[in-house]
Amino acid sequence: MLSLLSLRARIEAGSLTPSQAVALTREAMAEHEPAVRALVATDPDPVVPETGPLAGIAVGIKDIIDTAHLPTQMGSTIHAGWQPRADAAIVARLKRLGAVPLAKTTTTAFAFIDPTETRNPRAPGRTPGGSSSGSAAAVAAGMLPLALGTQTGGSVIRPAAYCGVVGVKPSFRLLPTVGVKCFSWTLDTLGLFAASAADAARALALIAGRPEIERPASVPRIGLLLPEYCDPAEPEAFGALDRARAAAEAAGANIRAFTLPELFKEAFDQHATIQDFESAQALAWEYAAHRDDLPPLLRAHLDAAQAIDAASYDAARRVAHHARRSLRDILRSADIDVVLTLSAPGFAPDGYASTGDSRFNRLWTMMGVPCVTVPVPGDGPPLGVQIIAGFGHDERALSAAAFLEQALAARR
Amino acid sequence: MLSLLSLRARIEAGSLTPSQAVALTREAMAEHEPAVRALVATDPDPVVPETGPLAGIAVGIKDIIDTAHLPTQMGSTIHAGWQPRADAAIVARLKRLGAVPLAKTTTTAFAFIDPTETRNPRAPGRTPGGSSSGSAAAVAAGMLPLALGTQTGGSVIRPAAYCGVVGVKPSFRLLPTVGVKCFSWTLDTLGLFAASAADAARALALIAGRPEIERPASVPRIGLLLPEYCDPAEPEAFGALDRARAAAEAAGANIRAFTLPELFKEAFDQHATIQDFESAQALAWEYAAHRDDLPPLLRAHLDAAQAIDAASYDAARRVAHHARRSLRDILRSADIDVVLTLSAPGFAPDGYASTGDSRFNRLWTMMGVPCVTVPVPGDGPPLGVQIIAGFGHDERALSAAAFLEQALAARR
Repeated sequence: MLSLLSLRARIEAGSLTPSQAVALTREAMAEHEPAVRALVATDPDPVVPETGPLAGIAVGIKDIIDTAHLPTQMGSTIHAGWQPRADAAIVARLKRLGAVPLAKTTTTAFAFIDPTETRNPRAPGRTPGGSSSGSAAAVAAGMLPLALGTQTGGSVIRPAAYCGVVGVKPSFRLLPTVGVKCFSWTLDTLGLFAASAADAARALALIAGRPEIERPASVPRIGLLLPEYCDPAEPEAFGALDRARAAAEAAGANIRAFTLPELFKEAFDQHATIQDFESAQALAWEYAAHRDDLPPLLRAHLDAAQAIDAASYDAARRVAHHARRSLRDILRSADIDVVLTLSAPGFAPDGYASTGDSRFNRLWTMMGVPCVTVPVPGDGPPLGVQIIAGFGHDERALSAAAFLEQALAARR
Repeated sequence: MLSLLSLRARIEAGSLTPSQAVALTREAMAEHEPAVRALVATDPDPVVPETGPLAGIAVGIKDIIDTAHLPTQMGSTIHAGWQPRADAAIVARLKRLGAVPLAKTTTTAFAFIDPTETRNPRAPGRTPGGSSSGSAAAVAAGMLPLALGTQTGGSVIRPAAYCGVVGVKPSFRLLPTVGVKCFSWTLDTLGLFAASAADAARALALIAGRPEIERPASVPRIGLLLPEYCDPAEPEAFGALDRARAAAEAAGANIRAFTLPELFKEAFDQHATIQDFESAQALAWEYAAHRDDLPPLLRAHLDAAQAIDAASYDAARRVAHHARRSLRDILRSADIDVVLTLSAPGFAPDGYASTGDSRFNRLWTMMGVPCVTVPVPGDGPPLGVQIIAGFGHDERALSAAAFLEQALAARR
């Protein structure tokens, strides 16, 4: 993979210019794109700033994020060829840091679950996951050192785990969603894909303008969570979690069991109510004017979503609100820094009919807490484990993820 | 003014068709627009649904709200001629209800404070207020029975008060802001302008899909608030508040004094921090690519806003959060239904250099609570008073507003 920190180190050492770094990236894209199909549009003649803390870093932008210089097509024929006027806030921010928003990456239509044509570069014949399919696959294939995704259910953590890269879903609204196509305003969260936890921490700290997010790996106090609020995982996922636990323990981490009260089962169940009610409004124009052009899974979803009433939505929001407050108190009193749990139910599913299952992600999206998935080395297709911290403590999740990466590397 | 309920009553009685109602509105627009200058674009050949609970109701859409059939220019040369692909969620909703989004109304650039060319139809020589200048003026002039605005500081309540119409800023996120140009995601709130509180209640209940919002006027328990958290009002504003108090009392309302603790002074002061930090991000593309094309007040605002750091923003958000929780508890224990207070510091300012002052609105926008301004009859230019209820109790604010309207009419 292309490492953001490695590229930046070479640039800072003077052995690589930003333009050369972007040229390297373009070569990698040209080499892998025919097989991976992660990109929808590429800037043929990008402006490459020679200065800035992200100069030389080419970024993949999920194609529901507005770009003033490239079409933004939402993975849907309804917006085919659509050219926004302005950059999304996060794209403007990347440019200001010297980065190059070089390519738009594939997305399932409107970031729902109808699959794209993208292939999983690490698991032939298996889905790369979704909805941020192209961003995960492009980083996994070594085509780009950094890519943007969004998560409403599990659209960052799941594809990152399936493709064997680091994915970060930061605290809710840490990154601005202005100019990002909305599916659910209570849930939509911008996230990042990168080659390592340290790469992701550097990028997040710079983009958010919060240097304290990037800090050295440190030995965390870990709460190990085996989710009881939904169907269990496949054996391979539990195997990865156990390898991660053992590696962390061997590296000196204090690990204890962590459980959640019944309220979180209720919160988990209410994710769909919030998402459905809001998506029916967010996509009201597409549904009213172009229902027949929606892909089948999204169309069926929106058909059903019309029936959610305001009272059910209000009740679901109250449950979510209570669960967020309760989680804050639980994490404070549990005397742990992070929770370690599953990223996905197992390997990426075989074939391309599904983008996989977000059941280990939806609750955390709703809680608004920072989540990082770290690849766990193994013999089969990629697997990841998820590290979760309290709201606003993105630095804890990322430094624990860096610790776990190092612990896992030491056991290889 | 054109009354939504009167038009709907005639349509339901069969004495007017929806097409005739829209034609009436078009005639009124043609008559008044040359003097008022409230519109930026009008649909020359609108589709008029013959059915639906808002059939026959033409609506003015503030020009930061996306429309698929009319340009959306944000009050700025930067977006001159810009044609969005999709309708904003609220525009799609209006169409579904049978309403006709007939015209785009003037807005200050990106809904900040650089004045538009719009005139105040009720107060010659005075500003109509802003940023929803065209929506307030169009309803005041009898050009439209309903118009959409947005409020980040005081952009619905203030122009409504200055123009002598009813303005409603509902509970935060009651109306979806998908497809509305963002200035501050924590504060931006969609609102309505109408000829009466009952008109506004019908519209809000239908648009929000919450029939319980529309209920008969009832005698409220009122807390009378003279804000001590900011500079005081002009004598004419206190005069209007006193006339409203006397009318409500004469009509049987129980009125007691209501005060806010020191925390709310702090919250009031922090509104700017939140707005500035978020607007620097929300308008990052415009600032980076078109700074010289920004109008002077917004340009100076964004120049200064670049300096707000994340720590100040986080501190401001914490203050706002505590104040919202505190307000909920205070309103519950105060044994009142609504707060009655000032809508604006006085008459609309003379001339067109300023859109007036939002100091009696900003705190409430930040609190996310429903606010309604009701015109108070008098001899000079229009004045309004503001009715505020607890979060989610839009029906209380609107039914108290209807009560006050009737009480004031009885005293004429």
